[in-house]
Amino acid sequence: MNCRGGRGAMTGSLSSIVTFAPEIIATATLVVDSRGRSFTEITDEATRFVAESGAKDGALFMFMRHTSASLVVQENADPNVRSDLAIALDRLAPADAPWVHDVEGPDDMPAHVKTMLTGVSLHVPVIAGTLALGTWQGIYIAEHRARPHRREVVLQFIGSRR
Amino acid sequence: MNCRGGRGAMTGSLSSIVTFAPEIIATATLVVDSRGRSFTEITDEATRFVAESGAKDGALFMFMRHTSASLVVQENADPNVRSDLAIALDRLAPADAPWVHDVEGPDDMPAHVKTMLTGVSLHVPVIAGTLALGTWQGIYIAEHRARPHRREVVLQFIGSRR
Amino acid sequence: MNCRGGRGAMTGSLSSIVTFAPEIIATATLVVDSRGRSFTEITDEATRFVAESGAKDGALFMFMRHTSASLVVQENADPNVRSDLAIALDRLAPADAPWVHDVEGPDDMPAHVKTMLTGVSLHVPVIAGTLALGTWQGIYIAEHRARPHRREVVLQFIGSRR
Repeated sequence: MNCRGGRGAMTGSLSSIVTFAPEIIATATLVVDSRGRSFTEITDEATRFVAESGAKDGALFMFMRHTSASLVVQENADPNVRSDLAIALDRLAPADAPWVHDVEGPDDMPAHVKTMLTGVSLHVPVIAGTLALGTWQGIYIAEHRARPHRREVVLQFIGSRR
Repeated sequence: MNCRGGRGAMTGSLSSIVTFAPEIIATATLVVDSRGRSFTEITDEATRFVAESGAKDGALFMFMRHTSASLVVQENADPNVRSDLAIALDRLAPADAPWVHDVEGPDDMPAHVKTMLTGVSLHVPVIAGTLALGTWQGIYIAEHRARPHRREVVLQFIGSRR
Repeated sequence: MNCRGGRGAMTGSLSSIVTFAPEIIATATLVVDSRGRSFTEITDEATRFVAESGAKDGALFMFMRHTSASLVVQENADPNVRSDLAIALDRLAPADAPWVHDVEGPDDMPAHVKTMLTGVSLHVPVIAGTLALGTWQGIYIAEHRARPHRREVVLQFIGSRR
């Protein structure tokens, strides 16, 4: 365990700064029918939204309108990563723990916990009209309930226009 | 565990895109006196901020200025959900683990861990002047310390004006 | 465990609202050479970006372009806090769990899990040209791999100009 970067010591290299005028805020809703306990990639849908909204430089904001599904940016190469992520979440919020709230089934309260831990709100930068994801990053809807659900994600772009 | 949505296959339905000009960035600070180890709902305060700032279409950004309390969007119907969320966090960061940092009491280091896991920064879309929360979503300050604390949250709206 | 704040009861005190026009979206990339399994503070780099971009009132958005390192706002006083945070993450995603994805080494899958739990996207408000961090808050790159890596963080400011 190392901790660097006290006040005064620069630990990173900062590129030149590019500046634009914010011209638009574009909003749409993405509806996805999830499979139970799954990661569904929505990178293509986010890319399409960015293209169709006329976005140039700014950021894409995403918000999941539910309490038992979440938004995750994770590796989009080996599907085993996402299987392992789901297993890791099961370890952190097991279905057989003594939950008080169990009226909606044994998978419901663990789904709330997993959603709290992984989050319903995130952003991805948009640079020159393109999502500035890293090489191995994809955007996923994480469905934490055992059965399929219809999920709504609000997509918004704030920035300059092409 | 299912993983869908490879490049090229659209898995979701995207609504039409609505576009406005970003006209304002409005900022205020919300001060809340928390109870110890609690979820305090601030949805009404966020709603009031959105109304008073003249917000129309854009996003509300919230930031917790502390390292042992966090911001969570979760179910606002059954209070047992929030009790179970708190118990789940206790399992993940138990007070009796062998923490090195214990000068501020046995509840302090677990509070830092819980804050790291749940986050201090989030946004909620604002559409036609209204927070676009899902049916069951509320916005909460999660107090992770055992005793009450005064907590500051910075609220900001970026978007168009009514 | 207490839950307050039903509809109608204001639980917090809201300051007066200050409003500006959003004039710029500024973007740069920060490259940091991390040490293995470490928290590297980038508060100074973020401060420098805010100053050099001419930012006045708005928000700084940060995005980590990787799937095994994350962004965390946490205590910048006692270094033991960050050591304990790293140990806490090890407990939540142990290297010796039976991960399926292990081709990149025993530290890789735990690093993905820790990244999912702590997040790659966050914002900090900027007020009067200054990051509105709390007294004890610093911004950190959390490196979850065992060896050093070169990490890219996209910094963006949206708001008014000095």
